[in-house]
Amino acid sequence: MEEKILELIENQRLNELRKYLETINSADFPSLFEELEEDKILIIYRILSKEKAASVFAELDSDMQKKLIDCLTDKELKNVIDELFFDDEVDLIEEMPSNVVKRILKNVKANDRKVINELLAYPDDTAGTIMTTEFIDLKENMTVEDAFEKIKKIGLDKETVYTCYVLTIDRKLIGVIDIKHLLISERTIKIKDIMNTNVITVSTLTDQEEVAKMFDKYNFVALPVVDKEFRLVGIVTIDDAIDVMQEETQEDFEKMAAVIPNDDSYFKTSVFKHAKNRILWLIFLMLASIITGGIITKYEKTFSALPILVAFVPLLMGTGGNCGAQTSTLVIRGFSQDEIKLKDFFKVWWKEIRIAFLVGTVLALINTIRIFIQYGVGQLSLALVVGLTLILVTILSKSLGCILPMLAKSIKLDPAIMASPLITTIVDTCSVLIYFQLAVWILGV
Amino acid sequence: MEEKILELIENQRLNELRKYLETINSADFPSLFEELEEDKILIIYRILSKEKAASVFAELDSDMQKKLIDCLTDKELKNVIDELFFDDEVDLIEEMPSNVVKRILKNVKANDRKVINELLAYPDDTAGTIMTTEFIDLKENMTVEDAFEKIKKIGLDKETVYTCYVLTIDRKLIGVIDIKHLLISERTIKIKDIMNTNVITVSTLTDQEEVAKMFDKYNFVALPVVDKEFRLVGIVTIDDAIDVMQEETQEDFEKMAAVIPNDDSYFKTSVFKHAKNRILWLIFLMLASIITGGIITKYEKTFSALPILVAFVPLLMGTGGNCGAQTSTLVIRGFSQDEIKLKDFFKVWWKEIRIAFLVGTVLALINTIRIFIQYGVGQLSLALVVGLTLILVTILSKSLGCILPMLAKSIKLDPAIMASPLITTIVDTCSVLIYFQLAVWILGV
Repeated sequence: MEEKILELIENQRLNELRKYLETINSADFPSLFEELEEDKILIIYRILSKEKAASVFAELDSDMQKKLIDCLTDKELKNVIDELFFDDEVDLIEEMPSNVVKRILKNVKANDRKVINELLAYPDDTAGTIMTTEFIDLKENMTVEDAFEKIKKIGLDKETVYTCYVLTIDRKLIGVIDIKHLLISERTIKIKDIMNTNVITVSTLTDQEEVAKMFDKYNFVALPVVDKEFRLVGIVTIDDAIDVMQEETQEDFEKMAAVIPNDDSYFKTSVFKHAKNRILWLIFLMLASIITGGIITKYEKTFSALPILVAFVPLLMGTGGNCGAQTSTLVIRGFSQDEIKLKDFFKVWWKEIRIAFLVGTVLALINTIRIFIQYGVGQLSLALVVGLTLILVTILSKSLGCILPMLAKSIKLDPAIMASPLITTIVDTCSVLIYFQLAVWILGV
Repeated sequence: MEEKILELIENQRLNELRKYLETINSADFPSLFEELEEDKILIIYRILSKEKAASVFAELDSDMQKKLIDCLTDKELKNVIDELFFDDEVDLIEEMPSNVVKRILKNVKANDRKVINELLAYPDDTAGTIMTTEFIDLKENMTVEDAFEKIKKIGLDKETVYTCYVLTIDRKLIGVIDIKHLLISERTIKIKDIMNTNVITVSTLTDQEEVAKMFDKYNFVALPVVDKEFRLVGIVTIDDAIDVMQEETQEDFEKMAAVIPNDDSYFKTSVFKHAKNRILWLIFLMLASIITGGIITKYEKTFSALPILVAFVPLLMGTGGNCGAQTSTLVIRGFSQDEIKLKDFFKVWWKEIRIAFLVGTVLALINTIRIFIQYGVGQLSLALVVGLTLILVTILSKSLGCILPMLAKSIKLDPAIMASPLITTIVDTCSVLIYFQLAVWILGV
């Protein structure tokens, strides 16, 4: 692809180049541009049709968008912006530095500027910020043929034609109709006779994660957004919903690994920023682990008398942490998939206790055999202490792995913060305490 | 909703009930059925139109599907199955026990049975298993009007009409056309003049994760699946692609928490199965941590002489594990988002080393202050040992968090197994070794 383009540029076969570029999917341009020098990028970009230029622009990352804007004349910029969908324009404005934003807004039509300002005013992470205002609206008394006429006239500039929305004169949403039903209906039939009046909507302030979940549940390709008076103000399309799903998943992964979530990509985040996103949790967890150290100090006499005890500390702490991580991950995921609900608390806990008992017993048995092999069967009481601790720690860590995310959820915190790192730290403290106390009781040291 | 339905049933107002049920979205039936008794469910289900019954059936989970099938007569079952899309039928057959499958296949038309058997024959997790064969196919010499005629005739039974596929007589795929472009074009224009010939396809054997990524990249609502001769054999629709994305994410979460992935939901998985999915990794990690214990034993003399040393073991192991978890999570996610590639190895490593140095130094400083406060400034050499270990362990764990997932990827293993649990265990061993060795050198114990 790249070679062919360079060859066409070199030989000044620009007509051919333009034709060829139009056949390339817009989503393939970003990786193409990465391989090319700036002057070549500009030649390519300027030769694209207006529609293509806008759709390619929407695919680029913000760095490349900025670079491109800096090279374009005001007239060229205006052409691109006129063709962009509103949701992409809003994304662009949110990403650009203020001098670029000024240039962009200067080149936006007065009417459009109003819409953009409205969209920019919605709170972060709500349906309002990811919706677009470019949809097909029909009236209930239109016939199917009328609808086709209207779509033909205005369809090109709309983000989707797959679903059409039926509005009253004061723009209240009274029905939706899928393009499939328009296409299989007789052309003389009235819209009101085939539209679906049981419309599923969200409000402009609905959390974007909720919006994404509705796409997943209902298999929609677009979802209407209404204001308090049930007037249709925009639609969210499936591509934006997928982006939200992925953002939210990424946030969960980061939170569960004790990293403060970050919108930028790995490479775009500076070393300093990366360090900043990670240090807070590390400090907190490090300070928390001082308690575990304190407990160990308390049992100094015990392990000084029987130093072999210390050798089992990593095994117990490690197993506890891993058990807690398994449970908390499944519970946190269960929440985010709406599979586990708060009311299931006792059901989940009881399940985890039984699992923990099974798992803990198996681990204790294996470890007992290993102690017998390594230290001889004389070490029965040591094996007993370690084995009992293993079972108790497994039950405790799986309980915490279930209780803590549930607790977070019930006080409206994100359960994802109650993941492996935090639970491991808490379990560490408990394991050491249980272990040495059992040693004192059973071994009498 | 539920109350209104029960009232209509009670008063035998079945016509009204049928009308009302048709307005409810199929995706809302599963939660409705959960609230109702079996006899009511059957009344409701039998009153639905054929199309609705099938679309509701496709939304139910496999337990409910099985229950329903057991209650339906052969004729009723046949009606449902006739209306199901092939991909849903295949899902159903894969989930049901063999006696139910036999009943289903008995009620499938001979032609359809052939298609189903072909779909069932594709290897797991490939495009072939998630595609459906119900798409709109056009010929290049048709006009737009011809296309509309054809869609009107066959559209109802097709899973999507949003994208149409242009085939030669021997079913080779030569173009695609979005319904939007059909709708905004003149009706006399030929399909071949408006179709997009630069078709992006996958093969029947393409991994389903690849398929899902293409939906994300190109914002498709459907993706054509072709055989080796470029004949169109099916399409994957966006709803199935989203399911795949979520399955794959769930698998990553489970693997990264040392749980063997499981297709069933949390509650549907038995206690025994849960235990089985978790025990293998726990045993492996427990046995691995014996090495750490062994190292501690080797330094028995050291910590017997200076028992306070043991108090810092949890802090060092914990911090190492957390640092490793942060990096490995970001690297593993980077891979699955195609943001980090194998060729970026040194770039990522170098970045992580610098981050680790920053983070480690801050942690060491904080910990030094804490040691001075807790044990007095006389403990300078102890603070030095712990601080140095912290910095080294941070650098080491962040390096391993980057190297191990990269290594797994390079030998075609899933990087997700190189996550927190495994890395924590390895880092534990190293931390203890570094710590006690530094203590021997610096403190001379």
